[in-house]
Amino acid sequence: MRSKPNYLFHTFSMVMSKTLKARYLIETSYDLEEAAQIMAGEQSSGTFVKIPGETESLRAKHGAEVSVIEPLREVSVPSLPGARGIPGNPIQRANVELCWPYENIGSNLSNLCATVAGNLFELGPFSGIKLLDLDFPPELAEEYPGPAFGIEGTRQLSGVFQRPMVGTIIKPSVGLTAKQTADQVKTLIESGLDFIKDDELMGDSPHSPFEERVDRVMSVINDYAHRTGKKPMYAFNVSGEVDDMRRRHDYLLEKQGTCIMVSLNWVGISGITFIAKHSQLPIHGHRNGWGIFDRSNILGIEFTAFQKIWRLAGVDHLHTNGIRNKFCEPDESVVKSIKACLQPLLGGYQVMPVLSSGQWAGQAKDTYDQIKSLDLMYLCGGGIVAHPSGIPAGVKSIQQAWQAAISGQSLEDYAINHRELKEAMDFYG
Amino acid sequence: MRSKPNYLFHTFSMVMSKTLKARYLIETSYDLEEAAQIMAGEQSSGTFVKIPGETESLRAKHGAEVSVIEPLREVSVPSLPGARGIPGNPIQRANVELCWPYENIGSNLSNLCATVAGNLFELGPFSGIKLLDLDFPPELAEEYPGPAFGIEGTRQLSGVFQRPMVGTIIKPSVGLTAKQTADQVKTLIESGLDFIKDDELMGDSPHSPFEERVDRVMSVINDYAHRTGKKPMYAFNVSGEVDDMRRRHDYLLEKQGTCIMVSLNWVGISGITFIAKHSQLPIHGHRNGWGIFDRSNILGIEFTAFQKIWRLAGVDHLHTNGIRNKFCEPDESVVKSIKACLQPLLGGYQVMPVLSSGQWAGQAKDTYDQIKSLDLMYLCGGGIVAHPSGIPAGVKSIQQAWQAAISGQSLEDYAINHRELKEAMDFYG
Repeated sequence: MRSKPNYLFHTFSMVMSKTLKARYLIETSYDLEEAAQIMAGEQSSGTFVKIPGETESLRAKHGAEVSVIEPLREVSVPSLPGARGIPGNPIQRANVELCWPYENIGSNLSNLCATVAGNLFELGPFSGIKLLDLDFPPELAEEYPGPAFGIEGTRQLSGVFQRPMVGTIIKPSVGLTAKQTADQVKTLIESGLDFIKDDELMGDSPHSPFEERVDRVMSVINDYAHRTGKKPMYAFNVSGEVDDMRRRHDYLLEKQGTCIMVSLNWVGISGITFIAKHSQLPIHGHRNGWGIFDRSNILGIEFTAFQKIWRLAGVDHLHTNGIRNKFCEPDESVVKSIKACLQPLLGGYQVMPVLSSGQWAGQAKDTYDQIKSLDLMYLCGGGIVAHPSGIPAGVKSIQQAWQAAISGQSLEDYAINHRELKEAMDFYG
Repeated sequence: MRSKPNYLFHTFSMVMSKTLKARYLIETSYDLEEAAQIMAGEQSSGTFVKIPGETESLRAKHGAEVSVIEPLREVSVPSLPGARGIPGNPIQRANVELCWPYENIGSNLSNLCATVAGNLFELGPFSGIKLLDLDFPPELAEEYPGPAFGIEGTRQLSGVFQRPMVGTIIKPSVGLTAKQTADQVKTLIESGLDFIKDDELMGDSPHSPFEERVDRVMSVINDYAHRTGKKPMYAFNVSGEVDDMRRRHDYLLEKQGTCIMVSLNWVGISGITFIAKHSQLPIHGHRNGWGIFDRSNILGIEFTAFQKIWRLAGVDHLHTNGIRNKFCEPDESVVKSIKACLQPLLGGYQVMPVLSSGQWAGQAKDTYDQIKSLDLMYLCGGGIVAHPSGIPAGVKSIQQAWQAAISGQSLEDYAINHRELKEAMDFYG
């Protein structure tokens, strides 16, 4: 413990009014308190050198405060290149919390991000900085009311209650015509799926123009809804320029669509808040590119912080991966991400976690045992369409697996009287 | 060389029409060709399993192609966690180029990014993926005409020719009132500065409302311009929601302002293209948060690729750091970034590189010798305001240093007859 023992007590009174909080993992060979103060200075009233205008009163009112320093283990080599370390000093990791007053930023999400995740990641003393978590000032809730639909609104629109929404993704990811997509949708919804989405590679391209895809797919879905009384949700990728997103949303709404999808990282925060304020449909938030932010343990933005920004921006569904996925993300991280989505934010802002990648009936029980919630989308590709008895049996196998989970039975026991689950376990297990 | 010897030849005919190209650094224990094909499949028509709809003709038309594989060195341990490596195989780095047809995406920058930088960075076989560079299909230029002002327009507006624009940043970064900011601007422009900018932490906050800051600062600048015939450029941070950015732009335009600033990563691509299409003023692109993308050598997006996306989005000025900066970025990377900005893109899209961080007269000659251009902004903080003979002498010292650079003289020789430069070298050197 290299920081002052009375650190927390020392700053307590000032910290109280500083309600924007950010927690980081840092790695440095500097004294930990000095390192944390450099971060706080750089992201508020200080800079590399002492400046005349940084008066005591300005600093007290606007300076970021270091509220927590928790030393962690030492590492033998710097994790990232370029740090200006102190020769001979150990390289140490620590958790650090900084806090800022609402007055520094106002109700402005991009300025908030410039404050908590701006010119920080290349600061000289650090061989690693990762933003782990955020607490927002309550004043932000006025400008950013968050998801308009969330879990409850999504369930109402799709008529699925007290179980996960079972879904899939159109494949191949790119290259199908609008007609081929609609034909695939017909097969999928006739098989009992609750939710289908565009792949994030499908947008508004010459071979599959957005309007034509909406026309053909919604014709299939509206016809099915008319016949059966159940309307599966299809998330159309509207990502693009703000005027185009608005136009696509309006077109889809007119055709009785029930969900738009956006690529969060590439549309960006201001584009997402724009479409969220305009949208009369839930927003399916696709996190593609997320690996840039979170693949490294020691650089970037962890999903816990990342998802809060997008919830504030107004996203209703958020991708999290599923357990035993085909990507690099370990189950521990996946479960943490799903739980983070289900945690209330500023007293609300409910968002639906979207589990996918390599999912089939086999992960349902382990997922439920860890998150104890049915408020999620469970997206399967091969886990449904490759089922040996066909797609309807694939869908049933997923639903049966979740019934087993809810009733506390093992998949094996439940499979005895549920043929589709039994076949799935024999085939995929 | 583990890839097929006839690799380039084999795919040549198909590659010709695939004009979106992305180059990556990868790290994997898979066979390099297999690894590259997994990337190409995941980001186009393929997925983890063979799917019925991925016909030969769809694949030929829409599948991404691997056009280059260049093996690099082996590494002893995986750079990033979670990779599903092949036990016993060496872990190898390689440069890989993939290419896609324009038809996969259409004129849509966010879908383009989802294609070249989407669900890639967490793919199982890789312990590292970094996007290094991009070539865009020429069709994109219709939807994205790029910077409306660039270097030439910025020079015209500020009346600075045949030398770098010398500038600074308002400090403290946050906490000054609008009046205090305007007072500081008065001192700075009376000292001969060409360019001043808001810090990225200054936005539209309760203690410094945007409109009031514009009123007070532009009053100072307009008065100075009226008296002297020279109008320094001030970049006001308009970052925020799209309607707010538009409103702030319009207000600034009405008050005869000449530049808006945006935090690129937090406004995001769709927000930036929106304001770029609307703007009648040059856009100063601040890259804060860039370290997330580029601090790691083996994860993220290198500046060479990063800057092309923002130029396409319409940004006129782009931050690059300066040499011998206070951050972690080495000079080699800084010089590469500046050169990248000065390289034509799709035959144009000129963008002004903005050098800053720890800059004073001392880096001018080395910078010029390496980039051979005067088309840049040279921002100094302490390098101007801490000059022992005051701020006007600080500004002169920078101009003299660039005169020395242009004339091919050493700073030492040039300083003999240039007092301000001499003092700067004695003080900062």
